[in-house]
Amino acid sequence: MMRLPVQASAEGLDAAFVGVPLDTGTSNRPGARFGPRQIRAESSMVRRYNGSTGAAPFDSLRVADIGDVNVNLYSLPDSCRLIRESYREIVASGCVPLTLGKEPVSLHGPVGLVHVDAHTDTGDAALGERIYHGSPFRRCVEERLLDCGRVVQIGIRGSSYDPDPHKYCREQGFRVVPVEECWMKSLEPLMREVRAQMGDKPVYISFDIDGLDPAYAPGTGTPEIAGLTPAQALEIIRGCKGLNIVGCDLVEVAPMYDVSGCRSKTMNVEEERTGREPEPPAERREIFD
Amino acid sequence: MMRLPVQASAEGLDAAFVGVPLDTGTSNRPGARFGPRQIRAESSMVRRYNGSTGAAPFDSLRVADIGDVNVNLYSLPDSCRLIRESYREIVASGCVPLTLGKEPVSLHGPVGLVHVDAHTDTGDAALGERIYHGSPFRRCVEERLLDCGRVVQIGIRGSSYDPDPHKYCREQGFRVVPVEECWMKSLEPLMREVRAQMGDKPVYISFDIDGLDPAYAPGTGTPEIAGLTPAQALEIIRGCKGLNIVGCDLVEVAPMYDVSGCRSKTMNVEEERTGREPEPPAERREIFD
Amino acid sequence: MMRLPVQASAEGLDAAFVGVPLDTGTSNRPGARFGPRQIRAESSMVRRYNGSTGAAPFDSLRVADIGDVNVNLYSLPDSCRLIRESYREIVASGCVPLTLGKEPVSLHGPVGLVHVDAHTDTGDAALGERIYHGSPFRRCVEERLLDCGRVVQIGIRGSSYDPDPHKYCREQGFRVVPVEECWMKSLEPLMREVRAQMGDKPVYISFDIDGLDPAYAPGTGTPEIAGLTPAQALEIIRGCKGLNIVGCDLVEVAPMYDVSGCRSKTMNVEEERTGREPEPPAERREIFD
Amino acid sequence: MMRLPVQASAEGLDAAFVGVPLDTGTSNRPGARFGPRQIRAESSMVRRYNGSTGAAPFDSLRVADIGDVNVNLYSLPDSCRLIRESYREIVASGCVPLTLGKEPVSLHGPVGLVHVDAHTDTGDAALGERIYHGSPFRRCVEERLLDCGRVVQIGIRGSSYDPDPHKYCREQGFRVVPVEECWMKSLEPLMREVRAQMGDKPVYISFDIDGLDPAYAPGTGTPEIAGLTPAQALEIIRGCKGLNIVGCDLVEVAPMYDVSGCRSKTMNVEEERTGREPEPPAERREIFD
Amino acid sequence: MMRLPVQASAEGLDAAFVGVPLDTGTSNRPGARFGPRQIRAESSMVRRYNGSTGAAPFDSLRVADIGDVNVNLYSLPDSCRLIRESYREIVASGCVPLTLGKEPVSLHGPVGLVHVDAHTDTGDAALGERIYHGSPFRRCVEERLLDCGRVVQIGIRGSSYDPDPHKYCREQGFRVVPVEECWMKSLEPLMREVRAQMGDKPVYISFDIDGLDPAYAPGTGTPEIAGLTPAQALEIIRGCKGLNIVGCDLVEVAPMYDVSGCRSKTMNVEEERTGREPEPPAERREIFD
Amino acid sequence: MMRLPVQASAEGLDAAFVGVPLDTGTSNRPGARFGPRQIRAESSMVRRYNGSTGAAPFDSLRVADIGDVNVNLYSLPDSCRLIRESYREIVASGCVPLTLGKEPVSLHGPVGLVHVDAHTDTGDAALGERIYHGSPFRRCVEERLLDCGRVVQIGIRGSSYDPDPHKYCREQGFRVVPVEECWMKSLEPLMREVRAQMGDKPVYISFDIDGLDPAYAPGTGTPEIAGLTPAQALEIIRGCKGLNIVGCDLVEVAPMYDVSGCRSKTMNVEEERTGREPEPPAERREIFD
Repeated sequence: MMRLPVQASAEGLDAAFVGVPLDTGTSNRPGARFGPRQIRAESSMVRRYNGSTGAAPFDSLRVADIGDVNVNLYSLPDSCRLIRESYREIVASGCVPLTLGKEPVSLHGPVGLVHVDAHTDTGDAALGERIYHGSPFRRCVEERLLDCGRVVQIGIRGSSYDPDPHKYCREQGFRVVPVEECWMKSLEPLMREVRAQMGDKPVYISFDIDGLDPAYAPGTGTPEIAGLTPAQALEIIRGCKGLNIVGCDLVEVAPMYDVSGCRSKTMNVEEERTGREPEPPAERREIFD
Repeated sequence: MMRLPVQASAEGLDAAFVGVPLDTGTSNRPGARFGPRQIRAESSMVRRYNGSTGAAPFDSLRVADIGDVNVNLYSLPDSCRLIRESYREIVASGCVPLTLGKEPVSLHGPVGLVHVDAHTDTGDAALGERIYHGSPFRRCVEERLLDCGRVVQIGIRGSSYDPDPHKYCREQGFRVVPVEECWMKSLEPLMREVRAQMGDKPVYISFDIDGLDPAYAPGTGTPEIAGLTPAQALEIIRGCKGLNIVGCDLVEVAPMYDVSGCRSKTMNVEEERTGREPEPPAERREIFD
Repeated sequence: MMRLPVQASAEGLDAAFVGVPLDTGTSNRPGARFGPRQIRAESSMVRRYNGSTGAAPFDSLRVADIGDVNVNLYSLPDSCRLIRESYREIVASGCVPLTLGKEPVSLHGPVGLVHVDAHTDTGDAALGERIYHGSPFRRCVEERLLDCGRVVQIGIRGSSYDPDPHKYCREQGFRVVPVEECWMKSLEPLMREVRAQMGDKPVYISFDIDGLDPAYAPGTGTPEIAGLTPAQALEIIRGCKGLNIVGCDLVEVAPMYDVSGCRSKTMNVEEERTGREPEPPAERREIFD
Repeated sequence: MMRLPVQASAEGLDAAFVGVPLDTGTSNRPGARFGPRQIRAESSMVRRYNGSTGAAPFDSLRVADIGDVNVNLYSLPDSCRLIRESYREIVASGCVPLTLGKEPVSLHGPVGLVHVDAHTDTGDAALGERIYHGSPFRRCVEERLLDCGRVVQIGIRGSSYDPDPHKYCREQGFRVVPVEECWMKSLEPLMREVRAQMGDKPVYISFDIDGLDPAYAPGTGTPEIAGLTPAQALEIIRGCKGLNIVGCDLVEVAPMYDVSGCRSKTMNVEEERTGREPEPPAERREIFD
Repeated sequence: MMRLPVQASAEGLDAAFVGVPLDTGTSNRPGARFGPRQIRAESSMVRRYNGSTGAAPFDSLRVADIGDVNVNLYSLPDSCRLIRESYREIVASGCVPLTLGKEPVSLHGPVGLVHVDAHTDTGDAALGERIYHGSPFRRCVEERLLDCGRVVQIGIRGSSYDPDPHKYCREQGFRVVPVEECWMKSLEPLMREVRAQMGDKPVYISFDIDGLDPAYAPGTGTPEIAGLTPAQALEIIRGCKGLNIVGCDLVEVAPMYDVSGCRSKTMNVEEERTGREPEPPAERREIFD
Repeated sequence: MMRLPVQASAEGLDAAFVGVPLDTGTSNRPGARFGPRQIRAESSMVRRYNGSTGAAPFDSLRVADIGDVNVNLYSLPDSCRLIRESYREIVASGCVPLTLGKEPVSLHGPVGLVHVDAHTDTGDAALGERIYHGSPFRRCVEERLLDCGRVVQIGIRGSSYDPDPHKYCREQGFRVVPVEECWMKSLEPLMREVRAQMGDKPVYISFDIDGLDPAYAPGTGTPEIAGLTPAQALEIIRGCKGLNIVGCDLVEVAPMYDVSGCRSKTMNVEEERTGREPEPPAERREIFD
């Protein structure tokens, strides 16, 4: 990952890239199990310094790639158990997990959430199953893992089986920013408001690649038109500078739907963020101010 | 189509999806004959409600897919005759045709036109032939099917054999909106003007997929760079709300040029529109207000 | 090329398209050696008149395609020698070279430069080699071919091995316009400033296709996300109208990375304009002499 | 499907095409859930008569497409239950199921098996799960659904975690025909032996598309090189003529890995034949009753 | 074409490559109008000598590329007229036409025919039209252009609307070689018989790229599985050595269905040979006069 | 590589996979610099045991992946120097190098050669350069690295600039097996002769992926039609069992020309076997017997 060292555990790290190669909970097009591998391959182009922002995270933070967690492709509940165990260990070592491939199934304490996605992922149950790729944040609410007044969802769009699809989110106190409010606009003003909302308490960042328009990121399972641009994605990531970040993920990268090398660019969103996000955990935040 | 019922005729419907799988009049890259099939396949992802606009057309309108009309792939004039006969029947039953694949060859009475396209499609004759994919709206003018003062063409661009390519349009009284006037702008102000121009008289909507930039909609035969974005396309479609729509089409979808699944998104433009366009035929317009 | 005549030498021409099918100095993905062929193939769709700008360059200028120069795919220094000789001859005949495929290795006298690119291309040496695809403009500075106060670089972005990657450029007096200053904005104001900066002295235009966002131009070797849009590219090219243009190029087109023919179409139509629009219609021909 | 009528149940049919759009038990590349849709789309090119064999199954048999069975994409055991119920109903009506997408999970009584595949699919358990795409025929053995002395597996190849991967098969009495015995040979002699082995007792045909070489059928999740050719596949299918066929399937078609529509066409036309040719023309219909 | 000279007419040539960029008579997937361009592009890899056969046709024959004939994409009958006129002129100059893109619509006197194809192309009429891509050889029979006792059709396969699809061919005295007779066999014995059948009277060679298996030549509109291999195609072409060849064509190359340039390369190198090897080296030139 | 351990040097290994990511000496389509990466990615599917042959090389040999050697993409002579130094070190440690990406530039003492390729790679000089991808084996002859009476070249084909392209090879005493001698035949008899020719003296195996037909291995720069099949390739590799192998390579894998991941999978699984089965160097040969 980004030519960083590879090591077996999170011991001694400030932040660690971790892969979760799983897609068995997918409703439409599967394939995200290959996302972590592809993200790593593409990241070899990312260099040490960001010429635009001056960010140089690896100058001050010990970051490594600790490989993939074990999953069970034939059983979703068993996979959840395996992932939970691995993450407990990572977090216990004081390391910030940077996840490739899957939304958080285990977080410590209620956290704020910056969630970029086409979908709110707050469905209740589908076909009687409560764990699938459309439900993670409702499960998080139920397990009291989210500080609901500090949740923002950006880029939401798409049609729905429900006449009022965002009702659940509103009721929890989430801020839903539909993509219509983002079209043809800089998101810097929005991110100023987000930073105020998040304060200095812990924040998790979840980036679903389908938040981007499929012209920029075709390699995903449930594309929706008229999404965010890469420029807006960078504004969001860069706008998180200074937050107290306790974890982040990039999910739903399904490389087989991106026939052209096109994904290299998509993935660079990852790189951009990895260039800046590992950054400000707790005590070292001053580096970035 | 959109998981709507399939039925053999337009009898009893408010609006009907109809396919016209024909591309023999194409000058550059053929393949649009497969457009209707692809649009139907992709539309299976469109759900009942639009979370952004609240549109729920099928709650108040009876809509179905009535299949493809017969065409003769070896004879363009004969195809025109076959299409004309089929549409006469559909319209006679009081149903609004929602066409997949071909511009209108038969319309009732002079109508207004909202035309999204890279090309004005008002050529006179090519190689001595008067019926080809570049001429339909000149033919419509000649047959007095258009109310020329209520015609707007949006997204026009591309090079030309003619030093003044829009002269014919201007002479008829069409409003031509070149794509340069759309770049990096919301089209909501334009659509306010369009609604004023159209009034409450009948309007036909013709959407050529190449009106979009080819990065968003590569599956078409005559792509031109620097086109509309999906966000702008949705602004146009949503901006038609309240008009007295008597028919619409989506044309020039040639799926083989869209190698990646990318087209799924393109097609969603269709879905977006089908979510709102069947809408306001005559007496039921209040539903949307 | 654009259905223009093909001829063996530049004799008697005002401007000439020339191909340089070389990519041996590439650090990441090679393939640009096929760029000139692809650009020519795609250009068959460009017609005589530009409906948006009224440009009709071939009404007043004698332009032809004079084929490719010889290169030595196995030796970069020998290729440079071969290219230099060919260009000396072209320029000696009073003809403006419109290059497909390679930055200028030979220019006459110090010239201004409008440079569209994701990268500044001012690296010093890589692996001990001073001639590679990242260094041409540093070589130009050293050979005093650039009028450094009249150099503008537009669309610059990407990560770097160097903490201050634009320092060299600033020290020479170049104006660097990072892509962040272009996002979601019309570039017409920028181009007004560029025209003032260039004055009526000679200007060279170098357009690296990776200046565009890879969603629009995937066919290139070193894509970087969040680039320029085709609309902005046209604003730049059209904004050069009136300048005293002594040469131009379109480089880094590597068609095999653009799986859908369509997108390379996109960028090449663009390219045509690069060659075509800067050329002064009618009354301004003397600028070239 | 093959332009056959579509109907809701198997009532009154001699044979019925049924889709099982499921791939959650896949170990490598998922996507076979889209196989049934693709097979149906491609089958529109198959016409009524086979010029080579004279087969005309629909002259004597009532065949229709009865759509897809319900599955639960989030739970493999629940999917198995749903499939089993649907098939019980189909078979009870006296209809032969022609399955698109999934090996049989429910068969009546012990049957013979002609199994074309790269893999024996007789694994025991993976990651503690007994139901996944590598185990179906071991489960069949355990449920006494196979007449083990009348099982032949053709095209077997690939590397293994087990030093003697075919031991289980041999112990059950299966005949394993490794692909090495098929290379560059007509399979007519083999099929004569197979017909003798099967006799006139009931036979099920299971055709995994990865039995073919991936050059001919790239659209699958676990390709293995040096497989069967389409000519050999047709020899196998045609060699089943006269057998007492009680069901058949075509599985592991994952269309997204077949970038060129053409090749999935290849394999699907193949598929059609799977469904079609085993069926006895005219005078042999009684075999099915 | 093969780096041969380009000239405007057939004057003074022994043989000439001619393109016919037309596909309006296609029933399934269109696109062959781009075949001639693609064949020419790919042919740049073919060199002067064939190491396997020693053929060196251009040592003894004057061959050039004389460009495309004019066609009318909107009218098939008019296209036929235009093609006929062009060919009359070519043949009148004593030059052998080597056609890229379309079966012969005009031949001089009754000739023998070596026809490689998946389809016999002897349909009568489709949708009331007598001229389409399935009928050319029936039209030739009717116009007495074929010496029916000297016609061989190789590679025939595919399903049919007609229970006895080869009846018409047999009645004319054609030899039909279904692909089943070619599977896994050298075709040298067949070609010995073909040479005896053809004698020293004039022969035309028509090569439809879909005679090959679609794994080798996916770029075509109506692929059929289990076709010829490239090795067999070369055996056929080389087996024509010594015949009195008066013309040949390569048809149905539709490059957009061949996503990987590589495969169209495959088939086009093949094509080159079509044009090249049948031509008698040195001592046999008189056959052509 | 094949889930083998990764280590920094060849110390203590029996054999080592080494990558040489270089393609600057390519005449046609570049891209093989990405071959080693792709081969490694695909090899993750290869398991411990070969069910067909019983081979289990890692049970008796210590094999690891020692990464890529350094190369200089901008200077071919400098790259050769770097490669030579790395290999000297590997061989000095008593380890057999299994090369991904480049023919041998340094071998110890005269060795026999089993060379699978479409081209003999014995060109003299191109454009005045003596080191390019068409010349390595002539350079080897000149440096007396080959035991010319023990050289066999299999699969040779393609057109040539030279009327007698294999003359040089014959003069050295090489056995050239043109692909025509392989068509539709088992190569086991050939390999029996090869084993007799090689005896028990040292042998190097060089496998150029373009020896295969491009339908099976499109991901290469200079494809030639009518090549070997994967079955024949396996017969060659397995036919090397028992030879005294001192090194081997797999070259010219250029993954970007293989649009479907699947086919590069095909060829890489092949590759694995190249590395794996030939193995038994010197003293451990009995393992295979």
